[in-house]
Amino acid sequence: MSEYDKVIHQPIRLRIMAVLTSLEHDAQINFVDLRSLLKATDGNLGAHLQKLEQAGYIAAEKVFIDRKPCTWVRATSEGTRAYQQHVQFLRDIVGEVQ
Amino acid sequence: MSEYDKVIHQPIRLRIMAVLTSLEHDAQINFVDLRSLLKATDGNLGAHLQKLEQAGYIAAEKVFIDRKPCTWVRATSEGTRAYQQHVQFLRDIVGEVQ
Repeated sequence: MSEYDKVIHQPIRLRIMAVLTSLEHDAQINFVDLRSLLKATDGNLGAHLQKLEQAGYIAAEKVFIDRKPCTWVRATSEGTRAYQQHVQFLRDIVGEVQ
Repeated sequence: MSEYDKVIHQPIRLRIMAVLTSLEHDAQINFVDLRSLLKATDGNLGAHLQKLEQAGYIAAEKVFIDRKPCTWVRATSEGTRAYQQHVQFLRDIVGEVQ
């Protein structure tokens, strides 16, 4: 049985990591696009991103475009690894019924 | 996106449902075998089974064999359906990276 990751298992965080790790290597997505992709609210998405950032699984960078703040988010190598391991953990479980 | 099931998403309960739904139709497993399969403790497994029973996802029957109590557990039709939906929910997310 592969490893169970409490940070990643939470459904919204699982979806965030799925999106981020599906981007090209080192590619980023901005907060607004991610929010619309996940149909999440500002506060909800912000809280989950913070949790992922604290775990070292994502990196967020705030830049200003026309003096408006814009946050870019990407998965770290550690985050990508953790996500892949967790997907394997889920596959191992689900495999039990196949 | 399929439905997210909070009761089933918890990893030990996800594994319990995976085992129960992998049995032949209406087949049961006893508590001791399930515990050894999941490498869980009595208290932990008992608590999670209770939660699944409260949700109507499993049925448990206590019988006495040589005056020793033995609990048999099986997935209900509702539980099987909920588990399959949840697996689809997980596949939908994980599919985002494929």
